[in-house]
Amino acid sequence: MRDSYGPGEQAAHDLIRGAAQAIGLEIAVDPIGNLRMTLPGRDRAGAAVFMGSHLDSVPQGGNYDGAAGVVAGLAIASGLQQAGVRLDVDLTIMAIRAEESAWFDVAYLGSAGAFGLLDPGCLAITRSDNGQSLEHTLREQGFDPTPIRERRALLDPAAIRAYLELHIEQGPTLVARELPVAVVSGIRGCTRFRNARCLGAYAHSGAVDRPYRRDAVAATVALLHHMESVWLQQCGSGADLVLTTGELYTDPALHGPSKIAGETHFVLDIRALSPATLDEVAASAREAAARIGDAYRVTFELGATSDSPPAVMDRRLRARLLGLLAQPYEMASGAGHDAAVFAKMGIPCGMIFVRNQHGSHNPDEAMALEDFALGADALLQLLLDFPL
Amino acid sequence: MRDSYGPGEQAAHDLIRGAAQAIGLEIAVDPIGNLRMTLPGRDRAGAAVFMGSHLDSVPQGGNYDGAAGVVAGLAIASGLQQAGVRLDVDLTIMAIRAEESAWFDVAYLGSAGAFGLLDPGCLAITRSDNGQSLEHTLREQGFDPTPIRERRALLDPAAIRAYLELHIEQGPTLVARELPVAVVSGIRGCTRFRNARCLGAYAHSGAVDRPYRRDAVAATVALLHHMESVWLQQCGSGADLVLTTGELYTDPALHGPSKIAGETHFVLDIRALSPATLDEVAASAREAAARIGDAYRVTFELGATSDSPPAVMDRRLRARLLGLLAQPYEMASGAGHDAAVFAKMGIPCGMIFVRNQHGSHNPDEAMALEDFALGADALLQLLLDFPL
Repeated sequence: MRDSYGPGEQAAHDLIRGAAQAIGLEIAVDPIGNLRMTLPGRDRAGAAVFMGSHLDSVPQGGNYDGAAGVVAGLAIASGLQQAGVRLDVDLTIMAIRAEESAWFDVAYLGSAGAFGLLDPGCLAITRSDNGQSLEHTLREQGFDPTPIRERRALLDPAAIRAYLELHIEQGPTLVARELPVAVVSGIRGCTRFRNARCLGAYAHSGAVDRPYRRDAVAATVALLHHMESVWLQQCGSGADLVLTTGELYTDPALHGPSKIAGETHFVLDIRALSPATLDEVAASAREAAARIGDAYRVTFELGATSDSPPAVMDRRLRARLLGLLAQPYEMASGAGHDAAVFAKMGIPCGMIFVRNQHGSHNPDEAMALEDFALGADALLQLLLDFPL
Repeated sequence: MRDSYGPGEQAAHDLIRGAAQAIGLEIAVDPIGNLRMTLPGRDRAGAAVFMGSHLDSVPQGGNYDGAAGVVAGLAIASGLQQAGVRLDVDLTIMAIRAEESAWFDVAYLGSAGAFGLLDPGCLAITRSDNGQSLEHTLREQGFDPTPIRERRALLDPAAIRAYLELHIEQGPTLVARELPVAVVSGIRGCTRFRNARCLGAYAHSGAVDRPYRRDAVAATVALLHHMESVWLQQCGSGADLVLTTGELYTDPALHGPSKIAGETHFVLDIRALSPATLDEVAASAREAAARIGDAYRVTFELGATSDSPPAVMDRRLRARLLGLLAQPYEMASGAGHDAAVFAKMGIPCGMIFVRNQHGSHNPDEAMALEDFALGADALLQLLLDFPL
């Protein structure tokens, strides 16, 4: 467990920094704690290639989510050092802080903070376990919240030629397809109805016939069933999309086994690589909610969406990485990664997924080192195949 | 609020008993507190006509659920007395105890107890508000639990020629159809999957594509949507049926907005007038759960059903009551009534529903006395139209 801006994450930083120093990399730590480890290239003034990931984990997380990407960067730098290969440009391995939102309820604190993208209000957010504010925590760890308060960038995007990240897949696709690695096509954006409700009327389950019901469960089932057909249609026409209702509940204070439910609460989580798909599916949900609400004499209050845009990986880097794989396979990432922040800054990004058993965000995360080596090797070959 | 075997119900009994004494009815109270008020007929030895309902209410209940039926009996007896009409047989108005299951979690304590039908184990059941056992409560109110312990009947079904009950509808049908009263065709039986579950696997909502999901919400939606189509089919072929899922929830300790849900809990409440319909629909649910479970890679555990059989009202009494209405209309009762217990004993039963505004089991229950009078008058005409 490597808690964001806590002793667990710091221990990982200390370990990685020690390893980087041992192979002679240049070390820098920015004011908010991101660790940069640089293997100098021939042209020290030009834009560098960045490679990295995060070192924090969720509570009760595993060994590989994030950390594998930092270790991959170090392994590549170490291999280049040992082989006496000098790249044309600097290679900077970045061990990023606080990617997980589990601790401070904001994702990408380290990478977004490095580009001056954070809302200063986030300094007041408290850590979920100990109630300490981000500002207090940063100071306590010897870091400086000032750049966040001033929205000051600590990295110049123009000085970064490309950002490369290796990460475990976090899903079952590569295991199911018996593939060791994949190239990531992009990080799905998310449009989420976080607090959707259906309002009907409570009534006796036996005494009210169908035409007189205002059944919130029946209407919600009809809506979610319709959304599944929208999903199948979209996928049938080639769109990348996942649709999930992970929370759905009647009111435990008011529901009952012999009652018609007067209210449901639910989440509708829409993720896709294309902003147009996100918009279309959200519009379908609103249209269906109005139509099905009328038919079932209930009211849907879908509420506002929370949105994070898709981050498409660089087309050229994707093609070159695919060409380096023995079994070329490309797939979307459903989970967010620091690469999304670099992509947002206009930096060409490339990502490699490594298959992992037992899912992620749990202590049983697993990854074969053979698979990891295949992924790291693809990134190494890409670096050698200059210019990026 | 007329709490079962509590001061509220007792106050109603005292009031009704006083009114019955004032018009000269014979009074008897059985060992478990049911009040019988008899208007003597010409043939005192023959089987009597019973008329009645219960005097208790749910917590925060209204004025009419149950009580209207007892008052209707008294009004009819009073009318006969005042008009100097003597019936051929005794007319016994029965004010029944504890019909509502809200207090002791068992319905029909009074009527089922009168016929020796109660499981003696019910004496240990505690009242939901004060934790006192039924046995303790009965003794405290001056009643005797012995007949319940010995399963001893306090009424001889052979001595009851017919049971008539007036009750508010409890549903919106008569209000919607602008009808003052209806004849009840029967009391729907109920087959209920009380503790159904769907077991899938929790996973990241973005990172797991459709073919790899074990999504408990999606599978539950598919099952409930299928059951709605079964409902529509059954109704299309003329069956009486209502289907309700009044409780449905993901696990608040484990669900999340960006998670696929690994588990749902739900109720499937099936009510119909025909035992065959109940069986068919329950079988459809089991068949669909197996099929949809396979398709969604989840397991449904529907569990055992709790069952109460339908109680069909007497065909001849129904026809005669219908013939007495200016606007003849027949409908099923979805809620249970004491008439179900009398019907179970093989006693011919007839029921009249009176329209009521604002539903039932709430303080806003409403009933126009004009509608009540139409219902009571139909029962009076039926009595005069001897033999039943």
